Order: sequence, then structure tokens, then C-alpha cells
Amino acid sequence: MRPLLAITMGDPAGVGPEIIAKALSDPEVYAICRPLVVGDGSAMRMGLEVARASLSVHAIRELKEAEYRHGAIDLLDLGNIDPARLVMGVPQAMAGKASVEYVLRATDMALAGEVDAIVTAPLNKEAMNMGGYSYPGHTELLAEKAGTKNYAMMLISGNLRVVHVTTHIPLALVPEKVTKERIVTTIEVAYDAARKLGIEAPRIAVAGLNPHSSDGGLFGDEEKTKIEPAIAEVKMRGLNVDGPVPPDTVFGKALGGLYDVVVAMYHDQGHIPVKLAGFRWDEAKGEWGDMGGVNITIGLPFIRTSVDHGTAYGRAGRRDGTANPQSLKEAIQVAVQMAKARKSLKQRRTH
Amino acid sequence: MRPLLAITMGDPAGVGPEIIAKALSDPEVYAICRPLVVGDGSAMRMGLEVARASLSVHAIRELKEAEYRHGAIDLLDLGNIDPARLVMGVPQAMAGKASVEYVLRATDMALAGEVDAIVTAPLNKEAMNMGGYSYPGHTELLAEKAGTKNYAMMLISGNLRVVHVTTHIPLALVPEKVTKERIVTTIEVAYDAARKLGIEAPRIAVAGLNPHSSDGGLFGDEEKTKIEPAIAEVKMRGLNVDGPVPPDTVFGKALGGLYDVVVAMYHDQGHIPVKLAGFRWDEAKGEWGDMGGVNITIGLPFIRTSVDHGTAYGRAGRRDGTANPQSLKEAIQVAVQMAKARKSLKQRRTH
Repeated sequence: MRPLLAITMGDPAGVGPEIIAKALSDPEVYAICRPLVVGDGSAMRMGLEVARASLSVHAIRELKEAEYRHGAIDLLDLGNIDPARLVMGVPQAMAGKASVEYVLRATDMALAGEVDAIVTAPLNKEAMNMGGYSYPGHTELLAEKAGTKNYAMMLISGNLRVVHVTTHIPLALVPEKVTKERIVTTIEVAYDAARKLGIEAPRIAVAGLNPHSSDGGLFGDEEKTKIEPAIAEVKMRGLNVDGPVPPDTVFGKALGGLYDVVVAMYHDQGHIPVKLAGFRWDEAKGEWGDMGGVNITIGLPFIRTSVDHGTAYGRAGRRDGTANPQSLKEAIQVAVQMAKARKSLKQRRTH
Repeated sequence: MRPLLAITMGDPAGVGPEIIAKALSDPEVYAICRPLVVGDGSAMRMGLEVARASLSVHAIRELKEAEYRHGAIDLLDLGNIDPARLVMGVPQAMAGKASVEYVLRATDMALAGEVDAIVTAPLNKEAMNMGGYSYPGHTELLAEKAGTKNYAMMLISGNLRVVHVTTHIPLALVPEKVTKERIVTTIEVAYDAARKLGIEAPRIAVAGLNPHSSDGGLFGDEEKTKIEPAIAEVKMRGLNVDGPVPPDTVFGKALGGLYDVVVAMYHDQGHIPVKLAGFRWDEAKGEWGDMGGVNITIGLPFIRTSVDHGTAYGRAGRRDGTANPQSLKEAIQVAVQMAKARKSLKQRRTH
């Protein structure tokens, strides 16, 4: 049976409803999964209007009412948006609170095994805080709800997959925060994530920290003191790991197919290539054109994928409906891929 | 008249002769410029053979003998390679010394105003040192010969142009080496380089240093203490400068046409996107496929462009001639563009 995905609507004042309407207009999505939107009925109808999508909303209160037929969006309607009060494109308490409630409900279903995966549309930190939930973002919310402490993100753009050793810290702190232990842990996360994506024997590249991986010690020693020992340790456990690979060539090699995952040392080392592979500015329109890319969260007791962009308030609710559903479609595909890989792994364990 | 370019052969044991043979097989090159190779006759003939190019070598001793006709490569033959002793694909004194002599001769001609620009094929630092010249690379050699102290590189890949504030230093030293003064100087270099490329009113983006440009001071303060003051200073002088732009979005915006040049804070911040835009690993062949990208040196008293790759010893002289001339062709195009821009600027000054 096709995997059942809970797609959370995200912030109703953002592009979430619009990109969901566009993605679910595509019959291909129904061919690979059973999509269930967790959100608000009135917000979903507004999204259909903006997207000019000729779909109807099949609002339900319980999962068993869902029919998963292309043309009518199955929507678990939490009824938490007053359409008369919703202002598109700005952070507001009602929408922020509602967006968290969708995630909490979807998480309950995932923890109970009622859905195969969660796919999240973007929410906004400020709106979420205004709504009374003080989380830095989606991932921390999901982790707390699931009782998980060790989790990590993998960024995916086409066949480029990246896991970070450090993320939101000043660049000046990166060299000290990149420890052998963190590198080992991150390589393990990268391996685990690749396996969950169905890659049998993941080939992992570990990027260097310094230019040309320090060119034999000419510019820095972190490759020698931390990265090489970390690689040696995981290699002893049988992992297929290469590195330190010079940072300015490793991503081109991964995109070309030489590696399945790249372990990046710091935020921009990994985010620059992922965004470049997935996003492109459209100067004629004065806005981002393509918005590809998917995030997945590793370490949760369920599958979770996410779009790789924010609420895009600036273009939310415009009459010309310019929001691009590409990233959401990819997040749905990756969730399906992971659900299938998990099923196949379980079956093998049983036999 | 079409600009006259001195194309230096680079290290004869590398891919230089082969990519020159391939580039000059293209009649389009002769349509836009008058190419003169500075190198060795026997090495050039070997390059033609590897490239399976049906061209002849028109060896000359003086510039006035050149004819610039597609089909016969005009070669200023320094006769400094003994073909019986040349070993392809390894660094050696004879080839290293010869490669420097080509550059010195081309520089003499450029300084004397006999050629409009120099385009350099790759040389190898180790071979150059074995040959008795201890320079870190091409650029330092050219700068010394030209008596220039203030010079800088611009990396070009399609419409992505990048100038760096810092380059070959440990990542740990970047935050302190990124000073307001260096940023101001680099913005000025970026502006100057763009003008020399014929861009009338360059739009310059300055990348942040920290993730999300520190997100308002959450991760680091270099944006506030150094980058913003530097931008304010050059703006007062009338330059069109934007920033600090978050590092993970600025390159996509530039590639999309929003900016003409990006000022990058450190080596990999700029090299990762440039290489990703120009290079792609070909996993089927187990080697780099496309090798695009051009470097230009700003601050010399003449125009100089260069390929964006090394001698590629690993594939030099193979019978199947797999070296890709794309980068050299682009370096020729950019040199022509700069020669024309200079001519047009001179004419305007005269009138």
C-alpha cells in the first residue's frame, strides 16, 4: 500500500496552503502516496483559490474518513483559523499557534503509528513565539514532543546530501567546536540517514575545514588533529568514508555521483552548495525562481521531511499565486522513499 | 582589429599543449582574436597529436611573422623542450623552467604593448621550483616581473564573479584577518575588475561572514563591527554595494543576475560556489567532466586571464586526449572582452 503521509499546513499566513494546493493538484503525488493534510479548512480553501487549483476540500475529523483520491484534498480540519481575522504575509499569534497545533497533531499520529511519515510546510519562528510556543524551529518542537535528544538534519538537493558537524554558531567558534567526537557522531548520523533513504552501502565524504584541506598543514592543522583521526575511527568499524576532501571540490564530486553524503564542518560550507544546487534567483521577476531542496530530521522515532524554505511571507496570498511547490513535492518524494526503505528493512529483518 | 592574445603553453608535461590544440581548433576563437602561442614547437606538436587536431604549427621567432589564420597555430617557439627527455604527467625541472620562460617572454611583450593580453595555461608549482623558480604560482611571478605589489584575483564562472577578502590562511584566522580596511580595499578591487570587464555600473554584493550574516548578532558580530562600516564607507563614495548578504543565498542571487560581483570573506566561501558553477564530476569516467571557470588578475599593468584548473598531470598526454578546453576558451573570451573594454574606455577618454 502507498505510504500515508501527514502533511502539516505550516503557518496559514505563509505560502504553506498555496504550495500544498499546487502539489496535490499533481496526480503523480497520489500515485506514490496517500496524502493527508493536517490544517484548517478555511485556510486550505484560501490556498486553493490563490493557487487557482480546481480541487475540493474533503474536511474530516478522523483519519478513517480519508479517501486519498486525487481531486479532493483529505484535510484533518483542526478549525483553528478565523478567516476574517487572518492577515496574509505577517506573523500573528493565531496563525503561529495554529501552525504548532498541526505539528503536534501530526506527531501524535506518527508516534501512534497511524501515519508513515510527516511532511512539514514552513512555519515562522516569530509567529510561533507570538502564539505562545517558544521553540527555535520545527525540529526542536518535534524532538521535544518525541522525547528525543540526539537528532540531526540532513539537507538534500537532488543527489547532493549534506549533514553538518556544526550549524548556527559564529564562524570564529567553528575550529574549536569541530571536535573529533562530533565528527565521528556526524559521520554516523550521515550513514544512518543514507541507510534510511534506502542507500545500501553509503559512500561518505568528509570535507576538510581549511582551504585545500590545509594543503598538508600549510593552512591549519584541524585536518590532521581531528578530521583524520575521526575518519580512521569510523573506517575501523567498516564504514566507507573518504576524506578530508578539499571543501571546494567535494560538493561537485558528490553532485556528480562519487559520494552519497557529504559531512560538512560548518553551516555555510554545506548550505552554500545545497542552496546553489536547489535555488536560483529570477532577476526578471525579482524573486527566487526554483526553490528545490528538502530537509530530513534523523533521530526521531518517525520519518520527517521538510521543505527547504521559509513561509515566504513576501509572496504569500498574492492573487497571482507565484509560490513554487517544487520543494514540497521533493519532500513528499523523499518521505515516500524513506517509508519504503523502512518497510523493506523491516521485512528483511522478519525473514 | 581583433585583440592579439599571447597564450602561454604552461607546463609542457601537463594538459596545456592539449587544451591549446583543442581550443585553437575552433574557428570561433580566430573570429574573436589573434591568438599567438608562446611555447615550444615539439611540445605543441605532441599536444596536437594527443588532441587529434588536424592543425599545423607555424613556428616563428618574431611577432611580425605571425599570420593568425585558423589551421596553422602561430607559435613563438622558445625551443626549450627536448622531446626525448620530456616525461608527461610528472613534475620535472626542464618543463618547469620552460613554463616560466613562456610567462616571462609573454610578460615582456605585454609590458612593451606588443600584445593586448596574456592568457595562461596551467603550470605546476613543484616543477617550477625544480626548474629554479621559487614562486607560489603564476600570479606572484607576473606581479614581480611587472613590479606590482597590489594585485588581486577575480574568479569567474559564467555570470558569477567573486573576489576574496582572504584566501590561503587557516579558517581559524579568518575572523581576525577580515578587517574593515581589507573589506574596503577588496570592494574597490571588485569594482575595478568589473569595470575592466566592461560592466558600466557594477552592482556589488558583500557576503556576510557568519551563518545568516549572524541573524542580527545572534552568531558573531563581524557583520556589525567590520562589514557594515566598510559598506557604509564605499557607499559614501557612490559605489552600488549591497550587504552583508547571507552567505548561503548571495551566490544564487548573483548567478541569477542580481549582482555583478560578490565579495567573499574567505577562500571556501567563494571557491565552493565558483567551482560548483563551473566544474562537475563525471562519475562514469571517474574524473572531472566540465572544467569551466576563469581567473583574472587585477592590478597588473596589462590584461591577464587564466584557466581555473591545474596541470591535471593525471590525464596529461593520454592517447585518448580527454582534457577539456572549456576553461581555456572562456579565458580567451574574457581576455577579448577586457581588451575591448579597455579600448572603448581609452577612446572615450580621447574624445
